[in-house]
Amino acid sequence: MDAILVINAGSSSIKFSAFSVASHKLEPIASGKLEEIYENPHFVVKRHNGEVIADKHWPSGEKLGHDKAIAFLLDWLRSHGEGSTLLAVGHRIVHGGEAYVAPVRVDAHVIEQLEALIPLAPLHQPHNIAAIKAIAAQNADLPQIACFDTAFHSSQLPVVTQYALPPDITQQGVRRYGFHGLSYEYIARVLPDYDHKAATGRTVALHLGNGASMTAMLNGKSVASTMGFTAVEGIPMGTRSGSLDPGVVLWMLDEAKMDSRAIADLLYKRSGLLGVSGIASDMRTLLDSDAASAREAVELFCYRISRELGSLAAALGGLDAIVFTAGIGENAPPVRARVCELSRWLGVRIDADANRSNGPRISGPDSSIDVWVIPTNEELMIAQHTLDRLER
Amino acid sequence: MDAILVINAGSSSIKFSAFSVASHKLEPIASGKLEEIYENPHFVVKRHNGEVIADKHWPSGEKLGHDKAIAFLLDWLRSHGEGSTLLAVGHRIVHGGEAYVAPVRVDAHVIEQLEALIPLAPLHQPHNIAAIKAIAAQNADLPQIACFDTAFHSSQLPVVTQYALPPDITQQGVRRYGFHGLSYEYIARVLPDYDHKAATGRTVALHLGNGASMTAMLNGKSVASTMGFTAVEGIPMGTRSGSLDPGVVLWMLDEAKMDSRAIADLLYKRSGLLGVSGIASDMRTLLDSDAASAREAVELFCYRISRELGSLAAALGGLDAIVFTAGIGENAPPVRARVCELSRWLGVRIDADANRSNGPRISGPDSSIDVWVIPTNEELMIAQHTLDRLER
Repeated sequence: MDAILVINAGSSSIKFSAFSVASHKLEPIASGKLEEIYENPHFVVKRHNGEVIADKHWPSGEKLGHDKAIAFLLDWLRSHGEGSTLLAVGHRIVHGGEAYVAPVRVDAHVIEQLEALIPLAPLHQPHNIAAIKAIAAQNADLPQIACFDTAFHSSQLPVVTQYALPPDITQQGVRRYGFHGLSYEYIARVLPDYDHKAATGRTVALHLGNGASMTAMLNGKSVASTMGFTAVEGIPMGTRSGSLDPGVVLWMLDEAKMDSRAIADLLYKRSGLLGVSGIASDMRTLLDSDAASAREAVELFCYRISRELGSLAAALGGLDAIVFTAGIGENAPPVRARVCELSRWLGVRIDADANRSNGPRISGPDSSIDVWVIPTNEELMIAQHTLDRLER
Repeated sequence: MDAILVINAGSSSIKFSAFSVASHKLEPIASGKLEEIYENPHFVVKRHNGEVIADKHWPSGEKLGHDKAIAFLLDWLRSHGEGSTLLAVGHRIVHGGEAYVAPVRVDAHVIEQLEALIPLAPLHQPHNIAAIKAIAAQNADLPQIACFDTAFHSSQLPVVTQYALPPDITQQGVRRYGFHGLSYEYIARVLPDYDHKAATGRTVALHLGNGASMTAMLNGKSVASTMGFTAVEGIPMGTRSGSLDPGVVLWMLDEAKMDSRAIADLLYKRSGLLGVSGIASDMRTLLDSDAASAREAVELFCYRISRELGSLAAALGGLDAIVFTAGIGENAPPVRARVCELSRWLGVRIDADANRSNGPRISGPDSSIDVWVIPTNEELMIAQHTLDRLER
């Protein structure tokens, strides 16, 4: 059996999924993660049916790091692969810059280019690259395919991506890129199976997970997105602030005497739903809570989404369909209901029963806009890109 | 004759207007400015009919400063006041914080409170206060009324003004305030003279001057605005960037090695229309230019306005009317035409002839949204507030 491995490497964890390949078709076999690789490593793998087939803890304080974690993972896959052949590894890479608008097979030159993009995504890009290098060190001949979270948005026009900054800043790559592109691309690919109008018309997809963004798509192509230069712009997220007046950052520097590291920590890790509620970054916890601050955080989240929906409808020149996806989007009926209520002015009407049972269609017959709940699958999208590149 | 003086004191200039008061009615007499008060002072005054009645240059390099400039101005007014009595001075104050939601007569306590707000508006508030103190030093008994650019927006709900930041930051005053409030208040007051529906319904006013912002008003009250914590958030302006990913500011710190002063200088003085075009901050110059970068800057300006119009329509739950005001809003038909074209999806249809002749009504009979051009008058609004406070 042939297999493809998908890797999503972060600063402290490595997530992975394995797919079998038969007659150009991909089937999920197993997925898992190595967590807290720098202080308290933990490895868990589940078969596609949910059965746990590995669960290993290292002694507390053990520092595995990216290299040893990857070496362990490849070893484990070899010894548990039941005779299958690993054809290639597909990586989720946060930033492709302006050059990479499609997946690319990694070589020394590509690695160099990806490293040159580190200043644009200093919190994520180095870890993505570390995983690529660790695998190359173990198996130099194994094809690795880089799949970019920015690539799907390369169809956006310059007037959309440009900030009102002088050219000498813009030319250094300071522009809107947009992220979650592999998720939006997956949605765009499966949308024709749900709704011809949504697939070909003016559609806003809401990727609402721990990270959250929204993308306006026309005929399945990205027209505009709420995330911009980094993955912190746009709507509030689990722990990220979303959009802020740039003057707030200057205030943090000048008045609160914070340095850039402290500000980044605050905006990425201690803001958003967690910061406002003081309770949790997890939407389920907030929806279950009776605390006023939990309700406030949820309402702020829904309100900012409704404002961005108006802005993205303007980018599209109107709206035909809305798609909710990712953790919150797929599983939080009260959030979808509130967003739709705040969007009645656009013609959105919800079917309460369909919403409670997670759709897939949750708009009522009286809605002028079709509203869908569609599960995303970024891993499958990466596996598909990886297979496509191999077969070229 | 009784008179009221209106002062708008900036970092390097002091603008003023004088109004006569008779039977509770205000009439403009003259207006003028003291410019470049720290390096190359220049004083000019025009009567309301446009006639120049003073034009004085100091020797180059002369440093007048706020105190001497104010002393000069009061002297000049005394000797040219033709026997009139100065009843009071009204000041445009950029920031009233959370406490000042209406004009207030200045005393030592108020000055203390305004000084405490300097961290929220370090570039403007100190100069506003300097003018108040200079007048008090000259004439301790002259009533001074502080009128706030933030006050009109105090009707906004917390979910609108809140950033997704932890309470310990929010409680230090880091929230959206909105500015240009005296302009929007003036528009809200005169709107019933133009259109009952616009005055009582869901209206977005566009204050497009060298500084530019947009405010959603419901029944003449502010519901949301594009400017937030500072006057840099929102749409691009003459020299200000408008909204930016906070990650852009972190990039400027960490990668471009700029300090907060250099960043503030870039975002306030070298961005926006000037930064993008590389030609001018002035819309007239850009509209007259054949340069591609000038067209690009104008298109970016109009595009971001159209996006914010969608967002503000969401804040209002729909849209009944649009009002263009301030320098660009009142005098740039191509900008209004382009913004309206990008807003066709909302039902906006423009009357090209009415637009060319600056309205006042520029929407066509087939428009579901009324579009108006209404001149603003912040100075009159301040004079009116000042008179109202005196008469209480």
